[in-house]
Amino acid sequence: MATNVDIETLTAEVLQSFSKTTDQRLKQILESLVTHLHDFVQDIAPSIEEWEQAIDFLTRTGMACTDVRQEFILLSDVLGVSMFVETINGHDTPEATDSTVLGPFHMVESPVRALGDDVSPESEGPRCVVSGRIVSVDGTPIGNAVIDIWQANANGFYDVQQPGVQSVGNGRALLRPEPDGHFNFRTVIPTYYPIPTDGPVGELLHATHRHPYRPAHIHFLVTAPGYKELTTHIFVGGSEYLESDAVFAVKDSLIKDFADNSNLEDAVRFEVQSPFRHGRFDIVLHPES
Amino acid sequence: MATNVDIETLTAEVLQSFSKTTDQRLKQILESLVTHLHDFVQDIAPSIEEWEQAIDFLTRTGMACTDVRQEFILLSDVLGVSMFVETINGHDTPEATDSTVLGPFHMVESPVRALGDDVSPESEGPRCVVSGRIVSVDGTPIGNAVIDIWQANANGFYDVQQPGVQSVGNGRALLRPEPDGHFNFRTVIPTYYPIPTDGPVGELLHATHRHPYRPAHIHFLVTAPGYKELTTHIFVGGSEYLESDAVFAVKDSLIKDFADNSNLEDAVRFEVQSPFRHGRFDIVLHPES
Repeated sequence: MATNVDIETLTAEVLQSFSKTTDQRLKQILESLVTHLHDFVQDIAPSIEEWEQAIDFLTRTGMACTDVRQEFILLSDVLGVSMFVETINGHDTPEATDSTVLGPFHMVESPVRALGDDVSPESEGPRCVVSGRIVSVDGTPIGNAVIDIWQANANGFYDVQQPGVQSVGNGRALLRPEPDGHFNFRTVIPTYYPIPTDGPVGELLHATHRHPYRPAHIHFLVTAPGYKELTTHIFVGGSEYLESDAVFAVKDSLIKDFADNSNLEDAVRFEVQSPFRHGRFDIVLHPES
Repeated sequence: MATNVDIETLTAEVLQSFSKTTDQRLKQILESLVTHLHDFVQDIAPSIEEWEQAIDFLTRTGMACTDVRQEFILLSDVLGVSMFVETINGHDTPEATDSTVLGPFHMVESPVRALGDDVSPESEGPRCVVSGRIVSVDGTPIGNAVIDIWQANANGFYDVQQPGVQSVGNGRALLRPEPDGHFNFRTVIPTYYPIPTDGPVGELLHATHRHPYRPAHIHFLVTAPGYKELTTHIFVGGSEYLESDAVFAVKDSLIKDFADNSNLEDAVRFEVQSPFRHGRFDIVLHPES
């Protein structure tokens, strides 16, 4: 290492500092990080005040995080990084159901519920049934899957955002499908909602005249032994903001129409009045390689 | 915005989301950030678990910050970003004294002290005198400058790191030079020390087999009306780690030899016993453009 670093040699000095890293993957990540980060700094040539603003922004983003709030995931989301990472990781499983972002609200353990239960018992508003089947890419039913579901209420808030209004677990469920892979649950029809705007990410959206809204959706995290984990949503067809999701997470294949179902056998099967709003979502998992 | 983003279109979608930003500098910064950040993600193709580790690392870095600790500055420092930004900002003033990083310990206001005072009255260890003159690039003395100084004690700790051991303000001073630009103060000779390793930045250094040490130095932040602010250090010649500063901040021009001075007139002038250790540091400021 030199004692007279300048811009031409500084990046090389920093890269050299990682030369003793024995974890080769960590070394690769840090070398790439430093290269791209220094390129960014050179590109924008920040003033000292701008660097201080960046430090302050990142610090406040970390400090805004709590047991039930994850502002750094939100920042990753609004910069498209979360969706980029999800898409990269889904690329090798094109036959499987599309993935999308985890989002910042998978913060508490979902309560175990029975098939057919209302997963949003404290949420007022019009109901729907969501049903489908979990299968492998070759059509084999996956009866030993676990389906983790979370969603906002009809006012656009998750349980953890409304302590004292919603109990933790409202809008959440851990479900196990039937042995043939079928699952179904009842819930309130979700609505579009704004991501939290009272923190640094909200400042960023405000300063750039971006709206904070996400189209109506229900989160799914599906796991099964021997299969790749699937993180995804279903979106409610016709929702506002499907064309401009604040976190870039919409994929056409994940938009479901939640249309009226007046089939009486279905109403009996799901134990609801006919007609009922019905979102259908068959989930295809990819075997682990 | 599309409803079916993929890797090829996602970056373009995110860039497009900033199209309504009226602050053109902010727009430029965010467009560059997104481009480089997505390039980085594409380059390393992180797994979901690696993305989660990155989120966790950044979150804990923010949460480690307090009124007297700035872990994000420390992260910027060990990745060479702070030095890069300082160097970019010093490039247009080559005739002026070289700048170097601010570091994470400029966290409290320094006490006003008189010229000649010992700025580290609670620090045990061998003393030195630091003296010099503040002038403009054309040699004009700058008598109305303010010199903000901060340094560690002989054990390598700043005041804010040792509540109950050092009072806040020990090792710090705000000094005004004489009308002719001369300044002098006494202090403990600083030693090399490790940057804080009990947080996420320490984990990073440990995982990459990097040492955490900085060579012995005294921080200076010099301001004067009509002149560019100067953030710099002087380094103690012969200190360990001058060749491998953990934050890449050493410049040859800032290394001072702190040699014995046996000139009796100087001893009288600085009110110290002869001989004494003497660091000489003439500071040249650049007029504001």
